Amino acid sequence: MDRIPILRMGSLLLVTIQVDMHDRLAMMLQDDLTAKISETEAKGVLIDISALEVVDSFIGRTLANIANMARVLDAQTIVVGMQPAVAITLVELGMTLSGVRTALTVDRGMEMLTGRNGDYRRAESIAPDQANDASLEE
Amino acid sequence: MDRIPILRMGSLLLVTIQVDMHDRLAMMLQDDLTAKISETEAKGVLIDISALEVVDSFIGRTLANIANMARVLDAQTIVVGMQPAVAITLVELGMTLSGVRTALTVDRGMEMLTGRNGDYRRAESIAPDQANDASLEE
Repeated sequence: MDRIPILRMGSLLLVTIQVDMHDRLAMMLQDDLTAKISETEAKGVLIDISALEVVDSFIGRTLANIANMARVLDAQTIVVGMQPAVAITLVELGMTLSGVRTALTVDRGMEMLTGRNGDYRRAESIAPDQANDASLEE
Repeated sequence: MDRIPILRMGSLLLVTIQVDMHDRLAMMLQDDLTAKISETEAKGVLIDISALEVVDSFIGRTLANIANMARVLDAQTIVVGMQPAVAITLVELGMTLSGVRTALTVDRGMEMLTGRNGDYRRAESIAPDQANDASLEE
């Protein structure tokens, strides 16, 4: 396996991490992902780590780095599918992944990024006009 | 890595194959996927193989098996992201993946499964009425 594939889904990118990330693989993922965000003008990145049973401080830092890089490129990052044991380990390691948003499932992560539900139908959200009106009333 | 994660996205399931599938992993994927289809009542399965640079006859057979199992559970399978070299090898091996539908990207695969485009908005396709009118003119 050469590199971690990045899947484009509309205006989102999805990365599924299934293997232990050594240094070179993590660097390549950062490079590939930033290039892809810029190329596709993606607004959001979903990183699925449901396959990881162990997340060490290196992977934790890598995830935080990726989220920060995406942010300066104007894309939001959400880490999805973290196993309970991983959450315990991370906090015990003193890493709270500050700045990284998380969601339990890909569906919920998508919902957070697009405001639509995972069924890919339009969410019944407040229309932008109405939202503006409300804020202008003050 | 224990098993290949299966991501649920609305009524679809997404599997990204990133590692060489040995016998046990392939068997587990079949078991997991059929269980997940039944559990989530999924209508479609997307299998991304963009990370694979080599697809041997074993993986080819596994993909075909999965597609057939999904079909009897009333779910469609689409294999997406096949690299050109893989297509060449498969045909040279005499495997045409008959019964397996393919798409170049996840977006297009989703479009095929849901009838919507990857942007999760309604596709601006030719309206069915117009298409019928045109063919009826002859």
